Amino acid sequence: MTVRAIVWGENIHERVNRVVAEIYPDGMHEAIARLLRQDPAIHAETATLQQPEHGLTEARLAECDVLLWWGHRDHGGVDDAIVERVARRVWEGMGLIVLHSGHFSKIFKRLLGSPCALSWREAGERERLWTVNPGHPIARGLGPHFELENEEMYGEPFSVPEPLETVFVSWFQGGEVFRSGLTWRRGAGNIFYFRPGHETYPTYHDATVGQVLRNAVHWADNSRGAWPTVHAAPNVPVEKALEPIVERGGKLHAKGEEGLR
Amino acid sequence: MTVRAIVWGENIHERVNRVVAEIYPDGMHEAIARLLRQDPAIHAETATLQQPEHGLTEARLAECDVLLWWGHRDHGGVDDAIVERVARRVWEGMGLIVLHSGHFSKIFKRLLGSPCALSWREAGERERLWTVNPGHPIARGLGPHFELENEEMYGEPFSVPEPLETVFVSWFQGGEVFRSGLTWRRGAGNIFYFRPGHETYPTYHDATVGQVLRNAVHWADNSRGAWPTVHAAPNVPVEKALEPIVERGGKLHAKGEEGLR
Amino acid sequence: MTVRAIVWGENIHERVNRVVAEIYPDGMHEAIARLLRQDPAIHAETATLQQPEHGLTEARLAECDVLLWWGHRDHGGVDDAIVERVARRVWEGMGLIVLHSGHFSKIFKRLLGSPCALSWREAGERERLWTVNPGHPIARGLGPHFELENEEMYGEPFSVPEPLETVFVSWFQGGEVFRSGLTWRRGAGNIFYFRPGHETYPTYHDATVGQVLRNAVHWADNSRGAWPTVHAAPNVPVEKALEPIVERGGKLHAKGEEGLR
Amino acid sequence: MTVRAIVWGENIHERVNRVVAEIYPDGMHEAIARLLRQDPAIHAETATLQQPEHGLTEARLAECDVLLWWGHRDHGGVDDAIVERVARRVWEGMGLIVLHSGHFSKIFKRLLGSPCALSWREAGERERLWTVNPGHPIARGLGPHFELENEEMYGEPFSVPEPLETVFVSWFQGGEVFRSGLTWRRGAGNIFYFRPGHETYPTYHDATVGQVLRNAVHWADNSRGAWPTVHAAPNVPVEKALEPIVERGGKLHAKGEEGLR
Repeated sequence: MTVRAIVWGENIHERVNRVVAEIYPDGMHEAIARLLRQDPAIHAETATLQQPEHGLTEARLAECDVLLWWGHRDHGGVDDAIVERVARRVWEGMGLIVLHSGHFSKIFKRLLGSPCALSWREAGERERLWTVNPGHPIARGLGPHFELENEEMYGEPFSVPEPLETVFVSWFQGGEVFRSGLTWRRGAGNIFYFRPGHETYPTYHDATVGQVLRNAVHWADNSRGAWPTVHAAPNVPVEKALEPIVERGGKLHAKGEEGLR
Repeated sequence: MTVRAIVWGENIHERVNRVVAEIYPDGMHEAIARLLRQDPAIHAETATLQQPEHGLTEARLAECDVLLWWGHRDHGGVDDAIVERVARRVWEGMGLIVLHSGHFSKIFKRLLGSPCALSWREAGERERLWTVNPGHPIARGLGPHFELENEEMYGEPFSVPEPLETVFVSWFQGGEVFRSGLTWRRGAGNIFYFRPGHETYPTYHDATVGQVLRNAVHWADNSRGAWPTVHAAPNVPVEKALEPIVERGGKLHAKGEEGLR
Repeated sequence: MTVRAIVWGENIHERVNRVVAEIYPDGMHEAIARLLRQDPAIHAETATLQQPEHGLTEARLAECDVLLWWGHRDHGGVDDAIVERVARRVWEGMGLIVLHSGHFSKIFKRLLGSPCALSWREAGERERLWTVNPGHPIARGLGPHFELENEEMYGEPFSVPEPLETVFVSWFQGGEVFRSGLTWRRGAGNIFYFRPGHETYPTYHDATVGQVLRNAVHWADNSRGAWPTVHAAPNVPVEKALEPIVERGGKLHAKGEEGLR
Repeated sequence: MTVRAIVWGENIHERVNRVVAEIYPDGMHEAIARLLRQDPAIHAETATLQQPEHGLTEARLAECDVLLWWGHRDHGGVDDAIVERVARRVWEGMGLIVLHSGHFSKIFKRLLGSPCALSWREAGERERLWTVNPGHPIARGLGPHFELENEEMYGEPFSVPEPLETVFVSWFQGGEVFRSGLTWRRGAGNIFYFRPGHETYPTYHDATVGQVLRNAVHWADNSRGAWPTVHAAPNVPVEKALEPIVERGGKLHAKGEEGLR
């Protein structure tokens, strides 16, 4: 069964910064989509900030199993209504993979309820990612560690909630560490944060990074198990109680009244 | 050492509904505060929706170790700026105890990043809370179960993130169950959700409920361990790296530039 | 891809107790295997306590993706060496589904490191299982709740470690609750505990129970992601360090020496 | 209130290895106990492998709030009966802090139900521990990171269950990372693993290590909340059910019979 993925790219630095444009002439989103398309079981499309509704219309999201998110320069430019729309789809069961500087995106902070801050250094130093959970589906086919010769450093503490599971931890040449692969679930939606991906380095041309992202898309896919009523707060009237009960005590709500939100 | 608690009450139904007013003539916040004051190691004040800044000024929150939150009728009436202010204090280390219908409060949904929905029935039925984690500090001094003869039913699924720990699970006479005591941490802030507390029943006059709340205040107190920089995203310049490194590769940021948010 | 499952049954009560024999004339293991075989993507065999090596030879376990375990009367009769063999395969990646009275099996207690105790009552009362995590793969296709008209009661507290996720919570007619579907991971092995299944009731003829077990087999299957070196504690000699370092300080181990265990 | 701690030391290398003896002339256990005694609210005694019952009699354990465990050379020399005795006390509520090479101790593997393996190198390299959870009580008073100039390397993957919380992550000079501070709970017992402490280096003379250990003792102390019945599996007879029920269906157990274990 094919997983339907959308790679969302902010698509700014690749157009205004020469270094980035040379590495990603077709845009970062396109490079990421190509990594996904190496797996015939993934159908990968793209969407960008500049498109109407940022390319994330209700109709497109309804047919998206896993959304990947890369943004950096203009997190504030993402419409709050679109953020809520994406959050809603995640709760209902759409997977979400947040990449690198996406740690400060509105959607990531919205779903984690935390500042998601970290320390950083742009020096092209060596990053070595260690698999701390080799049995996790996202680590399938990987060795004990892999390296990115040039990456931006992200350092702990990373102010996110304790994850469901930690998959990768990074070592940096300059002396820092970082929990580089973390999972959470919100509603029925699986969320994965993957650290690498600074735009001035060729990270999204790396074969192992591609493997991780394809694994993550399959792991995040929950299309067979959705939760469309995740927002619902239904009243269960006394006469429909599963066990017979008699109403007692004071009442706030008139019969058949909706609950307060 | 005294824990400084603020009990925040919406303070509406106790003024407009006769049933509630009779049970809580001084307001629900005052009844909850009295339960806390049975412990001389807790200093409990109150705050209400109607006060300037909802009684939650920067100055008061700065000196608050644990905030308790009861709201129901007018979640929407809480100013978004105050919600952000409270969230910030939680991340920095203030404890938060969310009560009953507070599951739909802005602050709870903000910190959990989830819909926080559930099913419900107002029939004054029996609720029996089981301690599933007898070793947890919030369960200190409690027996294996305790009952509230009249309570509103809340039923699963409760669309919140998987908790750090589950402390209580409720049995309802009408056939439902509910995870009634759940913990999370956001930043340095301990969060506890406690289910009982419908305004038309005398739940906040119950001795065991009082014991749970006092236990929870002590558990949530993290005043000796704060995280004031939880929001900070400092740049670590190459020349201050802990291990000597040489800058390489393409650059996005000019020297000394702030990061993007 | 077919998942290879083995249903392990103690196979005592169905031979010595007339009530059980009438419900499960071919043995409980066979009834459970039939439920699994309704899914053509599951290949289900059986094994019993009475077979040589309890039917769990090295060779069979090596080709088993998911093991299901039902035992009650003679947990002590299971050979410790076989328990260690099963534990080892779980750590390496074999899934394990522990059923009902298997909560006191050697293998469950071995892997959880906890007493796994609970309270109980054999009165054929009604059990209603609520799905508290509708987005979890084990809950696929289920409604919000399902009932077993006659079951043994298991009551909290259930002394197991905090699970990775809680999938089901049970309501009992006599007033108790129980966390009926819990997941953990040990090494690369996924573990699921599922509460129902008392031998004097026809639980393993129930269609919904069958659906849960088939879902659980697919969820537990980690055959594509094993961790064969989960036991290894390799020395990394200085000359093979990934970053150049110079040996310093006092030494305990001679060069090339094995570590202490 | 004073926390009663026992520091258990294997007490072998400090007697047979000159390097270790020079650093710890009174034994490692004594050095660790001295770090604890800097806090007047901790009463720290010691126990060693060579004492009768390894110094861990029923009577001593009954009055111990937190046990610290350092062993390396002779894990196999610890009596299985004492291991079970300690495990039982942990389940009932005694805290356990496992140090360094104690990752392969019987008691740690027993409680975690996992191989607890890792890679290693004894080269006196630099270790830098990063606080990834600055709001955790074990991190109180610490800065963002601290260094041990000479330590043994432990590398991921560390085959332990996903922790309740991750407190520290280590950076090693030779290129590895390690989750150096992890918490779990078993029954009512809080468990903390702290990585540093190789016997050929002066780690237990380090002030920051002392601070971590004192913090950990206070965090692990659960003496006010025990769970003495954690092993009990009581029958709840029909006539004592909390809600009235009528016995139905087939029966396995005669009235008043004990359950099977």
